[in-house]
Amino acid sequence: MMLNKSALQINNSEFKKSTIDSFNRQTVMRTLNAKLIHVDAGEVDIELDYQKQLTQQHGFLHAGIIATVLDSACGYAAFTLMPSEAAVLTIEYKINLLAPAIGDRLICQGKVIRPGQHVTVCYGEAMMVNKDQTKKVAIMTATIMTVLHKNDIKG
Amino acid sequence: MMLNKSALQINNSEFKKSTIDSFNRQTVMRTLNAKLIHVDAGEVDIELDYQKQLTQQHGFLHAGIIATVLDSACGYAAFTLMPSEAAVLTIEYKINLLAPAIGDRLICQGKVIRPGQHVTVCYGEAMMVNKDQTKKVAIMTATIMTVLHKNDIKG
Amino acid sequence: MMLNKSALQINNSEFKKSTIDSFNRQTVMRTLNAKLIHVDAGEVDIELDYQKQLTQQHGFLHAGIIATVLDSACGYAAFTLMPSEAAVLTIEYKINLLAPAIGDRLICQGKVIRPGQHVTVCYGEAMMVNKDQTKKVAIMTATIMTVLHKNDIKG
Amino acid sequence: MMLNKSALQINNSEFKKSTIDSFNRQTVMRTLNAKLIHVDAGEVDIELDYQKQLTQQHGFLHAGIIATVLDSACGYAAFTLMPSEAAVLTIEYKINLLAPAIGDRLICQGKVIRPGQHVTVCYGEAMMVNKDQTKKVAIMTATIMTVLHKNDIKG
Repeated sequence: MMLNKSALQINNSEFKKSTIDSFNRQTVMRTLNAKLIHVDAGEVDIELDYQKQLTQQHGFLHAGIIATVLDSACGYAAFTLMPSEAAVLTIEYKINLLAPAIGDRLICQGKVIRPGQHVTVCYGEAMMVNKDQTKKVAIMTATIMTVLHKNDIKG
Repeated sequence: MMLNKSALQINNSEFKKSTIDSFNRQTVMRTLNAKLIHVDAGEVDIELDYQKQLTQQHGFLHAGIIATVLDSACGYAAFTLMPSEAAVLTIEYKINLLAPAIGDRLICQGKVIRPGQHVTVCYGEAMMVNKDQTKKVAIMTATIMTVLHKNDIKG
Repeated sequence: MMLNKSALQINNSEFKKSTIDSFNRQTVMRTLNAKLIHVDAGEVDIELDYQKQLTQQHGFLHAGIIATVLDSACGYAAFTLMPSEAAVLTIEYKINLLAPAIGDRLICQGKVIRPGQHVTVCYGEAMMVNKDQTKKVAIMTATIMTVLHKNDIKG
Repeated sequence: MMLNKSALQINNSEFKKSTIDSFNRQTVMRTLNAKLIHVDAGEVDIELDYQKQLTQQHGFLHAGIIATVLDSACGYAAFTLMPSEAAVLTIEYKINLLAPAIGDRLICQGKVIRPGQHVTVCYGEAMMVNKDQTKKVAIMTATIMTVLHKNDIKG
């Protein structure tokens, strides 16, 4: 599924620090209490505890909340490969919901499928962990844009 | 874009009440402080005030939050045409982000494009209102499922 | 749904000629016998006669064939707004199939929803015409890229 | 990415024969000269030789043609798990184009990600083979419907 790691070109020697900094400025991640648990070249994992206040009418995590975390995982996976002065923006994504998101916590993994100067394509998976069981609950494909030379946005 | 209203078949004479009831059970809508502002056969509008705690790193509403509200608008637009005993579930959606979501408030409109017994296709638009200006910030297409005969989920 | 026409910026005074020229170089359009029937700023219509050799196993036009024509309609709608030296490439699209595509002929309309320097978002609809009846059979959202300064591709 | 094979439930003991039969009735596959090269529970591969008459304006295989073959690979991957009396229909798909499709031949692989009684989710990849090199050119996620009790369509 993924690119060969050695094929990925790093354009920012401090990509881990830059990613953590930008994630910490995503106020919504703090609001949801989402945690950045893994950052490497072309891949980012974010964890979200199941919380009653984020559910839809049947008590499952709302599809949009899963997408919020998955989108951030995909966006930051792309961001790890961008130059240090770039800003990252999501152009579009599609999510397929596979199973009800109910359990202990959600792990959202974003990976770069195709890096690009302007446009990067990512693939993401959301897994629900319940006790010692893991179930895939959603998949995403996302197109992420590298924004340069816009002084008002960065990271 | 939309179906001729007269072409829509109503299967639940109390669809407005059912929709409001189900919306009120979507805990996440209360968490986000989203308001159901319009319900009619095949169409639902939800409003969300711009809130700093729902933003990404540049201060725009996070794409996932826009999607959360748009997905609920699409899902409930489909739900208005379902029988009273049905439950509504999103199978998939795709969102294209068109412009930064910054302003006073977001209005998300979901409409049924193609009703179906099992599967309904909806189209949604998110508009950002800033003072007296309105700008389209996202569009969505969503596939919504009618779930019947599952005693544990309803609405 | 669409942009106000007057809001569209024209960057190629000969956009109609450029679009027709490029369409004529899309060999697959000739293979399918698809016809360019409308070109204006930000909008393109392409027509395809129903043909038995383009069907899936139930005798409906194959979803991929509908997508081929809709994608070209969307791509060329974006192309009408690009500078004369640009090449047009589809980054991604999503199609929802609404009804079986059986009848006399298919009309695919692509329209620009959000023009951009690098990336343009389009919306497309496919309608099947059967005698004097018209039925919407598919909708598409597509992201189209403006490619500049690549000497080997143009149009 | 994929389901554990042993987790897949077979509902048609002759699924290989049924899939081959239905594929042979997809007239468009014959028109494109596409070949079914692999059928197993939950997975189908289809091969397409590069052909000038299927290209867009830059000489690459048209995105819609890649999608036509990938969609059939995904649809038949889902079909392998359906009961023998079922018909298979694509509800929607999304395709991301990753690289220009130019080379000797295209291999499209469809796999079931989540089987379901009514709705199956598939993931597909298209690879271009050029001499001894293989390059991923597109990925797809597709939602496929199991149609039952419709006498006029089968397979």
